Amino acid sequence: MSTEAQAFVKEIPSKADQFPDWYTAVCLKAELADYSPVRGFMVIRPYGYALWEGIQRWLDERFKATGHVTGYFPLLVPEGYLKKEAEHVEGFAPQVAWVTQGGDEELAERLAIRPTSEAIIMPMYAKWIQSYRDLPVLYLQWNSVVRWEKATRLFLRTSEFLWHEGHTAHMSSEEADRECLTILEIYRQLLEDVLAIPILVGRKSPSEKFAGADWTYTLEALMPDRQAIQAGTSHYLGQNFAKAFGVKYLDRDNTEKFVWTTSWAVSTRLIGSLIMAHGDDRGLGLPPRIAPIQVVIVPILGKEGDKVRSAAAALAERLGKVARVRLDDRDEYTPGWKFNEWEMRGVPLRLEIGPRDVAAGQTVMVKRTGGEKSPVKLDGIEQVIQRSLDDVQRQYFTQAKAFLDGHTVSATTMDQFEEAIRDRRGFVKTGWCQAQACEDAIRTRTGASPRVIPLDDKPQGVCLSCGKPATATMYYARAY
Amino acid sequence: MSTEAQAFVKEIPSKADQFPDWYTAVCLKAELADYSPVRGFMVIRPYGYALWEGIQRWLDERFKATGHVTGYFPLLVPEGYLKKEAEHVEGFAPQVAWVTQGGDEELAERLAIRPTSEAIIMPMYAKWIQSYRDLPVLYLQWNSVVRWEKATRLFLRTSEFLWHEGHTAHMSSEEADRECLTILEIYRQLLEDVLAIPILVGRKSPSEKFAGADWTYTLEALMPDRQAIQAGTSHYLGQNFAKAFGVKYLDRDNTEKFVWTTSWAVSTRLIGSLIMAHGDDRGLGLPPRIAPIQVVIVPILGKEGDKVRSAAAALAERLGKVARVRLDDRDEYTPGWKFNEWEMRGVPLRLEIGPRDVAAGQTVMVKRTGGEKSPVKLDGIEQVIQRSLDDVQRQYFTQAKAFLDGHTVSATTMDQFEEAIRDRRGFVKTGWCQAQACEDAIRTRTGASPRVIPLDDKPQGVCLSCGKPATATMYYARAY
Repeated sequence: MSTEAQAFVKEIPSKADQFPDWYTAVCLKAELADYSPVRGFMVIRPYGYALWEGIQRWLDERFKATGHVTGYFPLLVPEGYLKKEAEHVEGFAPQVAWVTQGGDEELAERLAIRPTSEAIIMPMYAKWIQSYRDLPVLYLQWNSVVRWEKATRLFLRTSEFLWHEGHTAHMSSEEADRECLTILEIYRQLLEDVLAIPILVGRKSPSEKFAGADWTYTLEALMPDRQAIQAGTSHYLGQNFAKAFGVKYLDRDNTEKFVWTTSWAVSTRLIGSLIMAHGDDRGLGLPPRIAPIQVVIVPILGKEGDKVRSAAAALAERLGKVARVRLDDRDEYTPGWKFNEWEMRGVPLRLEIGPRDVAAGQTVMVKRTGGEKSPVKLDGIEQVIQRSLDDVQRQYFTQAKAFLDGHTVSATTMDQFEEAIRDRRGFVKTGWCQAQACEDAIRTRTGASPRVIPLDDKPQGVCLSCGKPATATMYYARAY
Repeated sequence: MSTEAQAFVKEIPSKADQFPDWYTAVCLKAELADYSPVRGFMVIRPYGYALWEGIQRWLDERFKATGHVTGYFPLLVPEGYLKKEAEHVEGFAPQVAWVTQGGDEELAERLAIRPTSEAIIMPMYAKWIQSYRDLPVLYLQWNSVVRWEKATRLFLRTSEFLWHEGHTAHMSSEEADRECLTILEIYRQLLEDVLAIPILVGRKSPSEKFAGADWTYTLEALMPDRQAIQAGTSHYLGQNFAKAFGVKYLDRDNTEKFVWTTSWAVSTRLIGSLIMAHGDDRGLGLPPRIAPIQVVIVPILGKEGDKVRSAAAALAERLGKVARVRLDDRDEYTPGWKFNEWEMRGVPLRLEIGPRDVAAGQTVMVKRTGGEKSPVKLDGIEQVIQRSLDDVQRQYFTQAKAFLDGHTVSATTMDQFEEAIRDRRGFVKTGWCQAQACEDAIRTRTGASPRVIPLDDKPQGVCLSCGKPATATMYYARAY
């Protein structure tokens, strides 16, 4: 290992041994994010924001293709509105940042910075929705929300985060539930096909559902420290908000009915999962489909600098048509330094090109996921690059899937269960009778939380806690 | 005029006679925006938000092409940071919304919801910028800001608005000024080439500059009520913020120097200008380059409904490759109703297609800007549509330019000036000695505000107020 490589590596703690420190170091060194002067609030730097833009672009296309439209609702919510749905305010009030002064004026009513926007969107729906002709309403917005947090970590838990929030209104319960599942499937594709993070998909336990929902669908991923993380949620809100805010429509049969609503979101927290899932001791690892830079080209000038320089530029131009390419032709850094920097920043493919390569009509390709350096002929290189990007994408997913599968165990006795949680074996699958008391008992005894009941659940055996026949399968884990 | 058309029109007040009511009616009826339960805060509805997305897309491409990158900085700014630059806090403090409680906790220091983000971005620059190698820093963010307003109007003046804010740091004064002008030119192209709003470009009077800037560049448009509106600004901040926040770099000569900074923005206020500029008594008018829907196709079913329906669908599919097309095949509305709705929503081109058109291999085109209905052969229709969209784009700009030119007058005596302002003739051009007292005198006497000193100023004659030789040309107007 070169001195330069050592210098880089020694600044990044070991992922296996010092996972939390490794995570923070990667966030900071890869310039994804930074701490701000406001406690608990982060700054998202351009390289991190580019990941968010990639997520936005991908999702927005699917949202539009499924009939959704984008709007924007106010940042502030009057306290009275937040209180209209009882469970909702109870769930969110402890985390609200309150505006009490506007200019020199003391406000008569406190205004909440939105922790989520149901309470400011529903009054608008009550105004806009009159007839069955106005339904369904399929709105979303891209915005930031604030939830006051005591302990925070870059991307994973911050007092402000970016997200989208979808809010839809429907004529029937079935249609609303179908909407939740449509969105859940879009999220699943984002996670698995784009971010290369395999997940368990299903429903939350009632104790873990969104405040004000009838039920919550969730996507749960397993991080390398074998803790679960909630990657996205889709809430079936029934008529709770419709009744609290009076959102009614005149149906074809000329009677007034309450609508059925949903809400759903993924946030910049996803970027935290992405960092944890694929990085290593050299830094970040990015699946090509989300990588802001997919291919970096590093010229190694040698004696024939000009020739190499122009060959590298020509290659960048050419590959720019099939991939997101960066030509790193900075003079103030050595090639070795650049190799390390781009590895640390997780660029999937590196192409080195020196005088001998120019002469041979080739370039040397290195995959971020490892393996041999391999010479690639310039003739037909587009296909090789595309195939290699696909390979790296697949490799990240395959690795992560093997990890998830290898860290999902079943427990039929409390001893097995406790041991699995204590050893941090990841997800522990067990039977549940759906009684809250049984869930509480397990949680108290083991410190694990119920994560997800699979979508296509076929419960087997008995409840781990009470021994009655299981009516659900529940995956438990320690969690973020 | 059909009964349906009358019904539509009677709901929109006359633009010429009741301009403010006309404006609000168009915002609401075209579903661009709505009032929210929070005083002074608006809801941007999807059709209005689509205009913003169009502006974002266009600008973002140019920002990226000129080396800018996007990030995200916290919503909240500690009061102590806001106070670091004296002029800045003095300018913004009266309009700040203050967060004083987080969850159950009373905050030790108030947090401002950002009215603009210099005070939260500069401390990060102080941390990130060490060496000349780190410069220039060319960041921007897309976000919302809050400025507490007493009297508000949809889009034009709201307590929260969406914008981008660019914040750049440079090694030299010249480079910072050049950055301001680069951005100003991008804004000019957006205004004139995309939104079809002609503008005067130049500098603000010192009394009207951004709080904390050395000088402010501005783009000023003239609305049909002959009031000026500031459409965008680009601020040269000199070293004011660099010194207040200690943003220094080690130069090549091994000495520490303060950076030179800029900031710049356009906001959703632009959408207000767009609505005012091109609408008429039938509603909104949208230049094709910004129109979310450029072509609407309305089938007129008649006896051969199925044939017409499939011909309309085929046409929509075909034109979808060259334009943003909407097929309005809703059964619950009549063609006449649809014509009026899409005119009210400002769609540049309407294509009607009925049984006789199908038989003749044609469609009937109607431009939103007026003129005859004209049959268009389906053969080669793509070129006709593209040319017609260009025509409509040009027509909007030409009309608006004629209006601006026709409402810009010169005044060499105070009587001429007063008369021009009283008669609302628009911009009044005059000589100025650059003394604040002279500006104040004119403002007090006429109620007009100084809008812009042209970029390529060649002052002539004398100062309108004191009679000394003019050192600048100033355009005055009543303004939004």
